[in-house]
Amino acid sequence: MLPPKINLKEKCSKLTKHWSPRIIAEMNDYQFKLAKVKGEFVWHDHKHTDETFIVLEGEMTLKFRDEEVDLSAGELYVVPKGTEHKPYAQNECKILIIEPRGVVNTGDAGGDLTVTEEEWV
Amino acid sequence: MLPPKINLKEKCSKLTKHWSPRIIAEMNDYQFKLAKVKGEFVWHDHKHTDETFIVLEGEMTLKFRDEEVDLSAGELYVVPKGTEHKPYAQNECKILIIEPRGVVNTGDAGGDLTVTEEEWV
Repeated sequence: MLPPKINLKEKCSKLTKHWSPRIIAEMNDYQFKLAKVKGEFVWHDHKHTDETFIVLEGEMTLKFRDEEVDLSAGELYVVPKGTEHKPYAQNECKILIIEPRGVVNTGDAGGDLTVTEEEWV
Repeated sequence: MLPPKINLKEKCSKLTKHWSPRIIAEMNDYQFKLAKVKGEFVWHDHKHTDETFIVLEGEMTLKFRDEEVDLSAGELYVVPKGTEHKPYAQNECKILIIEPRGVVNTGDAGGDLTVTEEEWV
């Protein structure tokens, strides 16, 4: 039995909450997650892994301690492991995140935006 | 020094040859590769890894031994490891491939379309 194909736009339409990535597919021990984001996230890093963002719709900024990277739909960015970053989006933005299974969205920073349970959409 | 952002459309415009994936970014020991494809590829599998396709522009078909999966722009598919597949595109199609570093495009099948050197675009 082969896995189903995933339509990113259709899956995005099922996201209900900002800053709550939902899993859509797995590749080996990596996961693809969709999120809609708006406003400020928290400063955090991921000590043991790089993390990839692909903007699907809208615009977002990845703030780093010394610079900012503005991303638009169709742009990809790999945040190196251990690099503090704070995602920000003035208007709602839809993104695809790729990272190893088990990565927590807020790293060790914790707080209200931490997603502790792995949920699929 | 942070890595640059990657604009997928801009990188796609630099691809010169069909069926020749070019690396655009790395995440841990995984690579993101862009390819433009047209026509028939060869039957092959990847014994040790899943392989992810995201269609960026156009349409393609992943033929499997017992079924076919048609993919359009904005759709993602993870081919399970060890699953024989044959990509096909009637018209030119641009895709993003995600897989571990070192995966050969034709698996063990070999042939003229095999890309033996890792090249970035």
